[in-house]
Amino acid sequence: MEQSLDRTIALLSRTPAALDALLRDLPEEWTRGSEGGNTWSAFDVVGHLIDGERVDWMPRAKMVLQFGESRTFEPFDREQHLSQTAGKSLEQLLDEFARLRAENLEELRSLNLRQEDLERRGRHPTFGVVTLSQLLATWADHDLTHLHQISRILAHQYREAVGPWSRFLGVLQCQGHSSM
Amino acid sequence: MEQSLDRTIALLSRTPAALDALLRDLPEEWTRGSEGGNTWSAFDVVGHLIDGERVDWMPRAKMVLQFGESRTFEPFDREQHLSQTAGKSLEQLLDEFARLRAENLEELRSLNLRQEDLERRGRHPTFGVVTLSQLLATWADHDLTHLHQISRILAHQYREAVGPWSRFLGVLQCQGHSSM
Repeated sequence: MEQSLDRTIALLSRTPAALDALLRDLPEEWTRGSEGGNTWSAFDVVGHLIDGERVDWMPRAKMVLQFGESRTFEPFDREQHLSQTAGKSLEQLLDEFARLRAENLEELRSLNLRQEDLERRGRHPTFGVVTLSQLLATWADHDLTHLHQISRILAHQYREAVGPWSRFLGVLQCQGHSSM
Repeated sequence: MEQSLDRTIALLSRTPAALDALLRDLPEEWTRGSEGGNTWSAFDVVGHLIDGERVDWMPRAKMVLQFGESRTFEPFDREQHLSQTAGKSLEQLLDEFARLRAENLEELRSLNLRQEDLERRGRHPTFGVVTLSQLLATWADHDLTHLHQISRILAHQYREAVGPWSRFLGVLQCQGHSSM
């Protein structure tokens, strides 16, 4: 399926409410547990999504429109949130994510992008030329990567509790594949 | 983390609203698309979750309490929903899932299970003796397996649209691992 603004916005506008319904007031044994070692908890993932709203998606989209291929995107610090979320509650993070996402989608709509704008090209620090359309599609799939990750992190908390069913539950076989 | 009724119910009670927030009125290009061949769409997964509410989780829990290890669970037909959801809308399925889940959790609460009940043993057709506690933990992780699957199915719809980012998006590397 091709990227379209309507499809992308339809998905992006739903993620905050979906995460809210899943995570708000869920006991902290679920939301603060990680997959071990330095891996992220569901709380950490929401912090990372907030960073994306602040410094990644819309700033990059505007950079493509303003500078095209002549300026390379700033690399995105994937650990930034770990210092910025300390002392906050998950409920505060969910509110902040919802607010930032709503503001960003309002700004995206206000750009009134036409097909020729979506075909404009920018420059990614790792893999070179990309289109604005690819960037917007990636914003949506990035939400889904982290919903996929959150479901895996939560399921991990019951890895022992499910007993022999662990062999049959797909999510418990997933080793995680995320590099963004 | 150990299974507890409060933790399990906290998770189980949130899944219908999370899926509703993600999927209701999302364009059908997202919700009816599969991962190719005979794989399931997000619509199909919700149908499967409805089947679980009808014939799997609470019937098995009650069988453990009533018959212990003396009676083996009925095998669960994972394809049943494919005939029962034809002609329905996704919105109807989401409503049905929410209603059945609420009814089942009300019944689960009404059983007033004590720790000794949770340790009672039943018999699974494939791997033999399991406890009621393991069954309830599996109910929760089964939700998460399918949230994990739905996020992967949706992300797949933009596999081409994201262009070079496809190498970096974890969800697009996931091959699926589900056998239940």
